[in-house]
Amino acid sequence: MKLPVIQPDSVNPADTAPPVFSKVGIVGLGLIGGSIALAARRAWPRGLVIGVDHNDVLEKAMVLHAIDVAAADLVIMAEADLVILAAPARRNIELLSQIADAIPEAAVVTDTSSTKREIVAAARALPSRLTFIGGHPLGGAARGGIDHATADLFKGRPWLFTPEPGTSPAALASLQRFVSALGAGPKTMEAEAHDRTLAFLSHLPQLTASALMSVIGDAVGADALALAGRGLADTTRLASSPAGLWRDVCATNADNIAAALDLLIERLQELRVDLADGDRLAEVFDAANEWREELKK
Amino acid sequence: MKLPVIQPDSVNPADTAPPVFSKVGIVGLGLIGGSIALAARRAWPRGLVIGVDHNDVLEKAMVLHAIDVAAADLVIMAEADLVILAAPARRNIELLSQIADAIPEAAVVTDTSSTKREIVAAARALPSRLTFIGGHPLGGAARGGIDHATADLFKGRPWLFTPEPGTSPAALASLQRFVSALGAGPKTMEAEAHDRTLAFLSHLPQLTASALMSVIGDAVGADALALAGRGLADTTRLASSPAGLWRDVCATNADNIAAALDLLIERLQELRVDLADGDRLAEVFDAANEWREELKK
Repeated sequence: MKLPVIQPDSVNPADTAPPVFSKVGIVGLGLIGGSIALAARRAWPRGLVIGVDHNDVLEKAMVLHAIDVAAADLVIMAEADLVILAAPARRNIELLSQIADAIPEAAVVTDTSSTKREIVAAARALPSRLTFIGGHPLGGAARGGIDHATADLFKGRPWLFTPEPGTSPAALASLQRFVSALGAGPKTMEAEAHDRTLAFLSHLPQLTASALMSVIGDAVGADALALAGRGLADTTRLASSPAGLWRDVCATNADNIAAALDLLIERLQELRVDLADGDRLAEVFDAANEWREELKK
Repeated sequence: MKLPVIQPDSVNPADTAPPVFSKVGIVGLGLIGGSIALAARRAWPRGLVIGVDHNDVLEKAMVLHAIDVAAADLVIMAEADLVILAAPARRNIELLSQIADAIPEAAVVTDTSSTKREIVAAARALPSRLTFIGGHPLGGAARGGIDHATADLFKGRPWLFTPEPGTSPAALASLQRFVSALGAGPKTMEAEAHDRTLAFLSHLPQLTASALMSVIGDAVGADALALAGRGLADTTRLASSPAGLWRDVCATNADNIAAALDLLIERLQELRVDLADGDRLAEVFDAANEWREELKK
């Protein structure tokens, strides 16, 4: 199915800055892809945003005026000069080979997966006309899906790129200008460092929150949960995250996440043997206090 | 040192309800004790609130008009009809024997410790003129100390009491009316059930947040922490808690906390072996999603 082309209805005549990319294709219009579409259309009302997803999602995206052109098939991307893979991590990797078939001209390709080593390695097989640079916007919201997409999702948040030694500096600079215009702060990291760092900053807290909530609920039941205060609510807020996306994250970063889990388990075991004494407890609390102050900066 | 008696400056002439207790003695004017003092003075402007703490804290309490009478010595409590031990858990247990010497008349004695079995057992040695009922207000704030005390701390929050089979129903009813007037919702639990339940609802999340923050900070350092988003901030908010109070909590509830830590460690280990596959991951995430919905109710 090919949905009708809708003209942008909010063109700002004062906006004469040419878009960094004139035809932006986004595969996967969930929270991240949908928010990129909305933010790109706001930044460049005259640019074209092409969306690929299932028809029910495309219909919502059209109603939200997030995209100009919609299709369930990648062939619609043929003329895109930027392709953004915004599906779950393992699906993005599968999409790489299909993109190569669908796009006959030169284009920049990036993704938004939460892990970077696997997709960066897979992208080395792309034909040379396609310049792949891994990307990871650190925006996020409590709930996923295009229904929660917003043009402000990336405002003031980092957007990590993982170029390789041979990556075109011009393509990287264009991507950096593109995400800056969406409100994000572009940064570059090596894919290895990215995956190790995010295992701690994002994947470990997520698994911990989910494990903690499931253990506590199973142990005390619904009546006792009603006694809980803000402390438990804060600590387990991430436990509302759906399993789907996290299966992909864990599968593509298992080694780093396992290492991070080992360190946490080890520290919990240290606290466990020290409960009556409290010396190690005080050390861990003091270190946590200091890092928490650092986090607030 | 005995500080001067200050008359309440905000007596509401319309307030003619007699206080449940006419002379309330509070030992320890931190966040909890200070907030009880402020809330009691607001509820019964004509009642007398007696505070015992170090002189520097007493001076702050007088300036805040949290207390009417102040002293660093328990003898000033001689005529109190309600004594509230609001020091850290192990200090409250030490105070029990001193209270017996300082109060020659009948009085109700309660405490605000986060653990209840040890103090309830220790209180069995009190002379029969003193009726002890363990208490635990579930209020709380990010930061402790009288500087953060507020009369609204207990508003809408549970206040748990742990009466024993022989406890005077009249004394319990008076305490329940007292904390209701402070805005709290009184509930009763057995001390054993209290300590087990709170090990999960409060102590485990606290230790987890502190362990998680210390592991992450140590692993990635300050520069990478700057990339972290709201998810990590929420999950580690409790890591700002000071070690002092938690040493006492852990020492007086070590068995329950160790059992809770064991369950969490076991679940984290299950997730660790399932990272590449994701089946157990999905189970834990789904259970966590459901309990988290329950928590929001």
